[in-house]
Amino acid sequence: MNYFSSNFKLGILGGGQLGKMLLNDTRKFDIHTSVLDASPEAPCKIACNEFHLGDLMDFDAVYNFGKTVDVLTFEIENVNTNALEALEKEGVKVYPSSKTLRTIQNKATQKLFYVDNGIPTADFSRFAYTNQIEDAVDNGGLKLPFVWKSTQFGYDGNGVKVVRKIEDLEGLPNVECITETMIPFKNELAVIVVRNPNGNVATYPVVEMEFHPEANQVEYVICPARISPEVAKKATDIALKVSKAYNHVGLLAVEMFQTNNDDILVNEVAPRPHNSGHQTIEASYTSQFEQHLRAILNLPLGRTDNKTAGVMVNLVGAEGYTGNVIYKNIEKIMAMPGVTPHIYGKRETRPFRKMGHVTIISESIEDARKIAEDVKNAIQVISE
Amino acid sequence: MNYFSSNFKLGILGGGQLGKMLLNDTRKFDIHTSVLDASPEAPCKIACNEFHLGDLMDFDAVYNFGKTVDVLTFEIENVNTNALEALEKEGVKVYPSSKTLRTIQNKATQKLFYVDNGIPTADFSRFAYTNQIEDAVDNGGLKLPFVWKSTQFGYDGNGVKVVRKIEDLEGLPNVECITETMIPFKNELAVIVVRNPNGNVATYPVVEMEFHPEANQVEYVICPARISPEVAKKATDIALKVSKAYNHVGLLAVEMFQTNNDDILVNEVAPRPHNSGHQTIEASYTSQFEQHLRAILNLPLGRTDNKTAGVMVNLVGAEGYTGNVIYKNIEKIMAMPGVTPHIYGKRETRPFRKMGHVTIISESIEDARKIAEDVKNAIQVISE
Repeated sequence: MNYFSSNFKLGILGGGQLGKMLLNDTRKFDIHTSVLDASPEAPCKIACNEFHLGDLMDFDAVYNFGKTVDVLTFEIENVNTNALEALEKEGVKVYPSSKTLRTIQNKATQKLFYVDNGIPTADFSRFAYTNQIEDAVDNGGLKLPFVWKSTQFGYDGNGVKVVRKIEDLEGLPNVECITETMIPFKNELAVIVVRNPNGNVATYPVVEMEFHPEANQVEYVICPARISPEVAKKATDIALKVSKAYNHVGLLAVEMFQTNNDDILVNEVAPRPHNSGHQTIEASYTSQFEQHLRAILNLPLGRTDNKTAGVMVNLVGAEGYTGNVIYKNIEKIMAMPGVTPHIYGKRETRPFRKMGHVTIISESIEDARKIAEDVKNAIQVISE
Repeated sequence: MNYFSSNFKLGILGGGQLGKMLLNDTRKFDIHTSVLDASPEAPCKIACNEFHLGDLMDFDAVYNFGKTVDVLTFEIENVNTNALEALEKEGVKVYPSSKTLRTIQNKATQKLFYVDNGIPTADFSRFAYTNQIEDAVDNGGLKLPFVWKSTQFGYDGNGVKVVRKIEDLEGLPNVECITETMIPFKNELAVIVVRNPNGNVATYPVVEMEFHPEANQVEYVICPARISPEVAKKATDIALKVSKAYNHVGLLAVEMFQTNNDDILVNEVAPRPHNSGHQTIEASYTSQFEQHLRAILNLPLGRTDNKTAGVMVNLVGAEGYTGNVIYKNIEKIMAMPGVTPHIYGKRETRPFRKMGHVTIISESIEDARKIAEDVKNAIQVISE
């Protein structure tokens, strides 16, 4: 198929910030793009050829949209997989596939998939409803502390809570959920694996994530991770094993824990461009967004190694501020060497809302990390 | 001024490919953009917030458009400078200024400017009309061979011709023009200088250009240029002198000849993102497009050094093909390491039409140059 012609059409489910960054890279290849999103104010609107309004969980909306494109991908996991399956049967290329997405969409199914495929992951229990957890604790079937996770619709720290005492369950939605054993770990790591339909596979360098202790959102993504070559190899091998098990097409971001005795446990995966890969825009030979396009269009994969070291800082709304956003000191951080802000264009900030990210690149990871801290200390996402 | 808010509006005169790449980088800062172009099919349409139809040489069109924005820039030199001047008087920030642009727009004025400012440039003569040249040759006032240049509206090899014998003048438009002494040179070099209203200045590394012998279009841009540090310093110093003389704001691409005895002569300048800076997207710490935005918004300038070596290959229509374009072997070049195509999305190709460019990056300039030749030998811009 000739992708570089106006007859070809790429469909993207979801019109958010990830989709917008993906669309930016479609410009390199002059791919004709069509986006489906439920919001008439979706960020993607500025960067696509066609925009369609529709609910991503609605069968008809996704199916009818999918029928108008040649290749269909998504920037968010919460889409109607039955519609994807129906489209696949009718010859639309859906990447990642409905099968891959189904297993990932539900965290309980995802965990069972790891167990079935011999992939190391933290022990867990599955509950049909959150209100069944208290009984399990009372009768000794479940020990505190643990991590509560909604099986669906959780992302960026939503749908996840550390439960140290039974009262911490209060206020949680009464939904299907899992509880995971708390693993004491040294590091949270991630590896992005990319695979095209031809079966070509490549991995990005291991990144290290530092989370904000309260908001449970990534604060720094550090690439390459400051770990031993042995641990990096182990993490990469496990990520490849996960990738092989899913037999996915496109990007697969594999998030992992490095335990205190250097075991690697898979936490969760995302079959799309991911927060742990934003630094690839500036630091890698091929950005994760270009790479996803190469993969789903069955083009040759690009180099995945680093041009420079890179650190990514999430820009989240400061506590105590809600309203029209101001990026205080943004000019100050732009004067620091190797610093590029990415502002997502949301008008209103609120505590911990993800408003953008900043990439810091440098010849040395130590310098990049140091500048990243200066960035973090200087910039404030506040309201007018 | 708070650029990172929806109240601010950046205006761009010209909706072509350079503008589109500039617009892509406005997304990092979430700048609200408005574009004026005469074509309803301008490439920029996909990437701007607002699009206005209008002739860039028409006073009213430019003036009325300019009144709706806070900062006004352009991606093409052929715009109405009287309108820019009127806008400046009414407080619109026009970068580069009407004064800078006026001097550059007319090649005769540009050459006189170099002479007035002690900037080395090839000797030249000015003619009100092309048909006056033959007399000058006949009466011994002008010697063959020379380079004929239209003083206006020339770019990408249009409006330029090497005249070796008097018959070569046939078919040239009868317009205001200059004739330049042919300078035997080793290299064509270029330096991009950036300057913001605060007076901060930075220079990109010297690049070396190889031109296609027939089409007079750049075939390879090589960064860093394979020249001695002394020559690089001389070229950079002269580019800075030109920049200082213009007192410009934004990018200034300074094209130069390195003569056989290592003198540097300024050929011409462009006050905007330039073909000689496309490799900065992948190879530099800060792309020329982001840098132009930083400059015209009076933000701190970004690093201008290289992350990697880079070579840029122009994709121009092959001879003998006119019609719906096909990028033959594009998948083959995408399998080469460090290769990213940039397809401009023009539907029809014709001989020597600029259809896109390809960037090749690598740790070593020798490797990048070698791969660039493989790219050049493999890809063919042909028609269906």
